[in-house]
Amino acid sequence: MAVDVIIKEVAPRDGLQAQPKHLTLEQRQQLIEELAVTGLTELEIGSFVSPKAVPQMAGTDVLASQLPAQPLDYSALVPNLKGYQLARAAGINTVAIAVAATEQMNQANIRMSLEQTFAMADELLASARADGSAVHAYLAVAFECPFEGKVDPAVVLSQARHLMAQEPARLVIADTIGAANPRDVKTLMSALVAEFGPERLGCHFHDTRAMGLANVYAALEAGIVQFDSAAGGLGGCPFAPGAKGNVATEDVVLLCESMGLNTGVSMPALLSAVASLSDMIGAPQGGRAHYWLSNNSNRCAS
Amino acid sequence: MAVDVIIKEVAPRDGLQAQPKHLTLEQRQQLIEELAVTGLTELEIGSFVSPKAVPQMAGTDVLASQLPAQPLDYSALVPNLKGYQLARAAGINTVAIAVAATEQMNQANIRMSLEQTFAMADELLASARADGSAVHAYLAVAFECPFEGKVDPAVVLSQARHLMAQEPARLVIADTIGAANPRDVKTLMSALVAEFGPERLGCHFHDTRAMGLANVYAALEAGIVQFDSAAGGLGGCPFAPGAKGNVATEDVVLLCESMGLNTGVSMPALLSAVASLSDMIGAPQGGRAHYWLSNNSNRCAS
Repeated sequence: MAVDVIIKEVAPRDGLQAQPKHLTLEQRQQLIEELAVTGLTELEIGSFVSPKAVPQMAGTDVLASQLPAQPLDYSALVPNLKGYQLARAAGINTVAIAVAATEQMNQANIRMSLEQTFAMADELLASARADGSAVHAYLAVAFECPFEGKVDPAVVLSQARHLMAQEPARLVIADTIGAANPRDVKTLMSALVAEFGPERLGCHFHDTRAMGLANVYAALEAGIVQFDSAAGGLGGCPFAPGAKGNVATEDVVLLCESMGLNTGVSMPALLSAVASLSDMIGAPQGGRAHYWLSNNSNRCAS
Repeated sequence: MAVDVIIKEVAPRDGLQAQPKHLTLEQRQQLIEELAVTGLTELEIGSFVSPKAVPQMAGTDVLASQLPAQPLDYSALVPNLKGYQLARAAGINTVAIAVAATEQMNQANIRMSLEQTFAMADELLASARADGSAVHAYLAVAFECPFEGKVDPAVVLSQARHLMAQEPARLVIADTIGAANPRDVKTLMSALVAEFGPERLGCHFHDTRAMGLANVYAALEAGIVQFDSAAGGLGGCPFAPGAKGNVATEDVVLLCESMGLNTGVSMPALLSAVASLSDMIGAPQGGRAHYWLSNNSNRCAS
């Protein structure tokens, strides 16, 4: 059965990259293996970044060399052209790159100007086109920047046009800090869908302010059918103490399935992976979709 | 400044009624006093039910006799005509009554048939009309029943017509067990708004499956502007272990305000009430709107 909504599982990357507890390669491998059999369509396995900068992601090349033989699209995040080449050498044919929508976020995140970041992305996209690799181009802080505040949708539209001209396999609009609201999401994503169609668009939400699923729903209403999420809602950010992580995959699956949209995901398999993940992290992880499995009657007044 | 969205705070009733920890009258009084100064428009202070059945709500008449002098609409839940008369004797001029949309839920909840429950509601609404009291009529399990499963929207529409003919001050569509999805919410509430207009309609959501705010947003999109919520997301249900409670008032406020909709609520005052509530319950309560107060920068990749 074809899926109605494509879910890109990012727990092994966006979920783990900010954890104070660093998983071993064997644990990351186990997580990938458990997620690979859930029916998820896409899986981001890690990133090819400096192990000094992000030790949690060291050894992603090893993981890339022993991917489970499942019909998934495996991918990895790369920070720049060098990372792209490392990923490609490791056999990864779909990479994600992130460019921030604001000057200050680019400076803070990768110490490059907005102009330099977009030039890097252009160069990487051109290389990938020549190589036949697929690129998911992420427009980070596309709704609100922690340094510059609300981002003008006209700026995002203009940046989206620039990136789309370089033919990424997907343009992902990312609410990096979990500050978007569903009305803004619907407005922006509707404008993007009207201009580019839904096929090459995706969304990436964090649940920092409890609006994660509302934003997913708003994007679905706008026609978006490709979403990032992390098993167990793993994620958060070391620079925003206590911040919640990505929208939980199990919650996104439950939302979609309850609205009659097929995700292809086996909930018991997914919840099993979330349980393992909780053990590895040493803290309970999880959205609230375990209620999918519960069958309690209840008798509350309203 | 007039509010765009009316929030009816139900923590002192729907929040406390299912808590294993029973608050003292003094604690409940303190909670009401703290909530009364937050700028909330409406406050449900408790219920006039048998103290044997729901000991958490014993003494609501005492609370009713010492309400803070604030410009709020205070109300209470009543289970039947007797409860209505007790509330009225205690000086409460706005009461809530709950009728469940399904036969089995009425039987399980109040040991009456669907027909008997609606007859009781009709009688109560007629009395209130004669007395000049306002009634919020709740249609419970309006999306899904724990015993009968999905509820046919045509049945709900028909029941809504019946109740609206009795002229309640408000008809509240309640997702009692937190099983609604935003697409169904938008469809049903749009139909109701088309037929009755938004002025006398409200929604009551629980966050059991993480879709609480998505459902609030969907109802807002349908034109609904009156919502129940509980400070701290208090609630849950003794018959669904671990179930999350009502949508958290602070999350609903944050959702509305982030979309430019004025609720009149002072977030610092509300979060202060949530903190007190957590102390009283002996467990941390709270949605995620404390991020409203945080101002952390962050530098996550996406």
